[in-house]
Amino acid sequence: MRQSKFIPILLATSLLALTPVTQASELELLINMLHENGMVSDEQYGRLIAELNQNKQATETEKQQELEARQVMEARLDEATKPPEVEVTTRGGIRVRTTDGEFETRLRGRLMVDAAAHNGNPDLGDGTEIRRARLAWTGRIFHDWSFQLDYDFADGGKLRDSFVSYEGFEDIRLRTGLMEIPFQLQYRTSSSNSQLIERSLLGAFGGDRYIGVMGDIKKQHWSFAAGAFGDTATRKNPINDEGWGLGSRLTVAPINSDGRLLHFGTAVMYRNVDKDASGQQRVVRFSEQPEARVAGRPIVDTGDISNSRSFTRYGAETAVIRGPFSAQAEYVYTAVSRSSASNLGFDGWHLQAGYFLTNDARVYERGEFGAVTPKHQVGQGGIGAWELTLRYSSLDLSDRDIIGGEMDLFNVGVNWFPVPMLRFSANYIDVIKVKDGPNDGQKPRVFLVRSQWAF
Amino acid sequence: MRQSKFIPILLATSLLALTPVTQASELELLINMLHENGMVSDEQYGRLIAELNQNKQATETEKQQELEARQVMEARLDEATKPPEVEVTTRGGIRVRTTDGEFETRLRGRLMVDAAAHNGNPDLGDGTEIRRARLAWTGRIFHDWSFQLDYDFADGGKLRDSFVSYEGFEDIRLRTGLMEIPFQLQYRTSSSNSQLIERSLLGAFGGDRYIGVMGDIKKQHWSFAAGAFGDTATRKNPINDEGWGLGSRLTVAPINSDGRLLHFGTAVMYRNVDKDASGQQRVVRFSEQPEARVAGRPIVDTGDISNSRSFTRYGAETAVIRGPFSAQAEYVYTAVSRSSASNLGFDGWHLQAGYFLTNDARVYERGEFGAVTPKHQVGQGGIGAWELTLRYSSLDLSDRDIIGGEMDLFNVGVNWFPVPMLRFSANYIDVIKVKDGPNDGQKPRVFLVRSQWAF
Amino acid sequence: MRQSKFIPILLATSLLALTPVTQASELELLINMLHENGMVSDEQYGRLIAELNQNKQATETEKQQELEARQVMEARLDEATKPPEVEVTTRGGIRVRTTDGEFETRLRGRLMVDAAAHNGNPDLGDGTEIRRARLAWTGRIFHDWSFQLDYDFADGGKLRDSFVSYEGFEDIRLRTGLMEIPFQLQYRTSSSNSQLIERSLLGAFGGDRYIGVMGDIKKQHWSFAAGAFGDTATRKNPINDEGWGLGSRLTVAPINSDGRLLHFGTAVMYRNVDKDASGQQRVVRFSEQPEARVAGRPIVDTGDISNSRSFTRYGAETAVIRGPFSAQAEYVYTAVSRSSASNLGFDGWHLQAGYFLTNDARVYERGEFGAVTPKHQVGQGGIGAWELTLRYSSLDLSDRDIIGGEMDLFNVGVNWFPVPMLRFSANYIDVIKVKDGPNDGQKPRVFLVRSQWAF
Repeated sequence: MRQSKFIPILLATSLLALTPVTQASELELLINMLHENGMVSDEQYGRLIAELNQNKQATETEKQQELEARQVMEARLDEATKPPEVEVTTRGGIRVRTTDGEFETRLRGRLMVDAAAHNGNPDLGDGTEIRRARLAWTGRIFHDWSFQLDYDFADGGKLRDSFVSYEGFEDIRLRTGLMEIPFQLQYRTSSSNSQLIERSLLGAFGGDRYIGVMGDIKKQHWSFAAGAFGDTATRKNPINDEGWGLGSRLTVAPINSDGRLLHFGTAVMYRNVDKDASGQQRVVRFSEQPEARVAGRPIVDTGDISNSRSFTRYGAETAVIRGPFSAQAEYVYTAVSRSSASNLGFDGWHLQAGYFLTNDARVYERGEFGAVTPKHQVGQGGIGAWELTLRYSSLDLSDRDIIGGEMDLFNVGVNWFPVPMLRFSANYIDVIKVKDGPNDGQKPRVFLVRSQWAF
Repeated sequence: MRQSKFIPILLATSLLALTPVTQASELELLINMLHENGMVSDEQYGRLIAELNQNKQATETEKQQELEARQVMEARLDEATKPPEVEVTTRGGIRVRTTDGEFETRLRGRLMVDAAAHNGNPDLGDGTEIRRARLAWTGRIFHDWSFQLDYDFADGGKLRDSFVSYEGFEDIRLRTGLMEIPFQLQYRTSSSNSQLIERSLLGAFGGDRYIGVMGDIKKQHWSFAAGAFGDTATRKNPINDEGWGLGSRLTVAPINSDGRLLHFGTAVMYRNVDKDASGQQRVVRFSEQPEARVAGRPIVDTGDISNSRSFTRYGAETAVIRGPFSAQAEYVYTAVSRSSASNLGFDGWHLQAGYFLTNDARVYERGEFGAVTPKHQVGQGGIGAWELTLRYSSLDLSDRDIIGGEMDLFNVGVNWFPVPMLRFSANYIDVIKVKDGPNDGQKPRVFLVRSQWAF
Repeated sequence: MRQSKFIPILLATSLLALTPVTQASELELLINMLHENGMVSDEQYGRLIAELNQNKQATETEKQQELEARQVMEARLDEATKPPEVEVTTRGGIRVRTTDGEFETRLRGRLMVDAAAHNGNPDLGDGTEIRRARLAWTGRIFHDWSFQLDYDFADGGKLRDSFVSYEGFEDIRLRTGLMEIPFQLQYRTSSSNSQLIERSLLGAFGGDRYIGVMGDIKKQHWSFAAGAFGDTATRKNPINDEGWGLGSRLTVAPINSDGRLLHFGTAVMYRNVDKDASGQQRVVRFSEQPEARVAGRPIVDTGDISNSRSFTRYGAETAVIRGPFSAQAEYVYTAVSRSSASNLGFDGWHLQAGYFLTNDARVYERGEFGAVTPKHQVGQGGIGAWELTLRYSSLDLSDRDIIGGEMDLFNVGVNWFPVPMLRFSANYIDVIKVKDGPNDGQKPRVFLVRSQWAF
């Protein structure tokens, strides 16, 4: 309330002016004149002046009372118009924050409903799936600390990113808890905002969440994250040490403004593998489905790679936005170190692009893609945002004695965002090559649709 | 604030009137008269008129200032009294809505605590159970779209109705996600509002949730719903297609007003059965417990019916409310189509009624029963609502080579609703006949109590 | 708003005073004098008086209008300053309450992130763990009733205290649902407020939650609780009755004020054991880890004790707070009744103490310890609260033919509470004796750290 300072002054001044004293000055002048001129007797003059003075006195009192009444009113107005201490908003989720910025709490959610029809071979099982059903609680306490609890109710339930974070240093966050390692642009981007329905075949090399500590810094034109991690939330190893790892990612965005983006990134991560329940074996395994999860059957699969000490992954990524057009590409190489056999190398890459038919654009925020907000939404005279998407993915899980297979596929799709927070997508996935591995020579095809709300 | 338009005008008028100018007119008149009469000299007259004019000027300025001050005050009052953009309410749950009707979000919950003692034979295990412990998040975004995420934490956790819905057409809803098929009045009625503690033996033929799409329309005197569905939320079939089905339900309520209801309904649903994990068999199975779930042991049970291609269910239902009295009856026939044997038919029915000892009534809302709100609640001088309930249920799961058994039972009970959202119920279930099947000739009896909050 | 009563009166009075009528009295006096003195003619006098009266009339109207305008303004101010019907606050969690005290709803949460390194022998597996990830929903409806739903998302998910409660009698609560039995001070104290990271070795004898009914009363200087319980939330026994039990606890706090506490308590509980799934056996088993849960491996363990009919536990506890110093001690004896062998007795005890290096103190609230609130928090010029902690625990699970083993350990630690609701702790656990049992003669050591938010 910028006004509240000068108003009492204005009121007080105007109040002083308002009182009928002004008129009294002419009347007094007149009375004095008439007395001087002998028009009123001394006795009459005395009574007039007495009356005048008494009224002056009364007027003073009245002025005072009015001033006080106004001040009370002002105080009540100040109280009535002061901003609330707590602000509650809802746009799907709930956000409650104290207006002093000390505390904030948000409930967020996400539901993805998938259906898939398949042909080609293997003719995977047609069906439906609740892909994700998530409830996340995030917030801020005492300005510098933030917290999160995130759970996916789908598929029996899984804990997602849940941590405590210190954000008292500018742009830097330190956090400990369960979180994703900083690796791959497609995993830094929320599943809600994935350009095609599922992430690419590079999912074989990413997406795990571990308990650990991480620091990151995010700027307009670059970001950096590094962390040390133990094992997953459910891993429990009574005698042998759990697995552990390190990971870091650096991104630069030399162009990042006015709907234009040029982004590069590189990341490396290391995992030391723990022994299995028998305490005898250290095992890793990589496999991947054809950019759809409804059937739940991997097409390429290394099987258990025994005697695996550790693996190291290297990733490179780039992304471009120019108005309605966007593209991204990633390459990942995974090196597996074995104790009693030669080391192994697997790799994969994808190139994907999207083009909005409507005047919309992808959103990039400090190293990751955000949610699309259609400019002309349904219900307000618009048709929402429509995006055509295309991806080519390639994955090679065969090396030396491990023949997991190679897979290449095209994935074309369309996204419809009728209003913010809603998304309906359709993808057609055409596996054009499977070489070696458990499904050598087969070519499954998938038609996949998803309905999604996320906020 | 209807007042806010005319108040500034009223204030402004009164303000103009208020200023002491009025008095000036008499004074001016007097001065002029005195001048005319020669009582004041020209020089004096000049001074008086000058003083008068100066004061007139001052008064004009004062008026203006006061007017401005009042306008500022009015503007602040307008601001202070304008309705909030967001409205938060709690009655157990939380509801946050924007007052423009665009957004709404609600947290809802439900807890049912059961205990059961048994006798008769088989003498089922006495015990306790958290029957349901649910958290549901529902809401509306951009006026026309709604969402829900519902989870039951009891028994290891199960996802319940979770979907996205379009409600932009009047009275019509289109939704996709996980939901119950539209079948049976007792399943259209929330478990919180079931007249007896558990639903009737027709539970053998209903209550499943599938992922699919559904449209429904609900009017004062009729409702219709139809949908196409895939399989359950957890079903995953890597090679064979998942099961699928269709379902629709039509209800009419020729009488539905002032505590009176006459309701009829009919429904049909079809399910195509998928193959089991081995990929060899298509199996269905129907079984039922004696209207209590604590012991968790079915009394009639068809076992796996092999070579089942599909089944079709037909349902008919009716319900009556007249003041404190209400009744409902349902009949369901299930036809199973087998690939290498004759088709099968199973059926069942129930008739139930309730009578409020207090001046309360069942609530019916567009094709389903709602929550009872006691008229004279505990804590406000009342004793809450008390309802006596009675049900007869009959189920026949024997046909041809499949001898699942027949079961008939009486279920009598009492419901106490001390305040809205709370319910305490007791049921005594007397199984009067079990013929054939795994418990042929046995007659278990159950005393079941439930404590419940739901909102 | 205490002011609102007298303000309208004040305003009205000041308003009457404000009107220019006062001035009129001098003028009228003057006019009358001048008329008496013959200075104005009768005709002039008539016009003056007419003008005067007309203006008096106008002034009356103006006064009335102004009064009405003020009243409207007052009414609007009353409306604008009246307290809201619903109050929303956030300090991590969300609390929504109606200001009439009838309804309240709160979302509360808790996350504990653990990491442990081990040496000694057995060299337990180093690793990490999400120890607890809880979301609790508590509230009040219609003033006298309260509800809770509490879920732990860690480790696959477990329902925690979930109930409905009647609190309409002063200080007395009656509740039914899933809850902890009233036993052991360390279990009455929330896991968030445990002085060392994990509770003591007496965890072997406590902490289970059962479905039942309980009443308790809590006063400044004493508390009492007693309940009857069925079995756990997940236990389902189709034919044999589930286990059941009774429990009660009495505490007295002769000194409890101004940072000083002297607390004594005693409790007894009885459990009747149910038969296992085979229906042949009644089994109990006691085991315990070394005050750390990351590795998940018990060090002492009775194994299944067959033919156990029931067990009875007796507990004694004491606690002291004096400024920054606090201590507590507990002893528990467990007697197992066997049907075909001699009865067994196991026992254990712990003594623990803490000392705040900063000017802080433990909080005691009616029979349990509460959350520490640092006096000088980080971010406001302070370093938070720092507490040194120490515990000695002893557990004996060997008696007669059952050789579960004896374990003694020292546990030293430090707690840092940078701000309310956050806690970072480190414990070093030195098992100084393991005699008999599965790990006879071994001496594991654990370094355990925890990061926690809880509100």
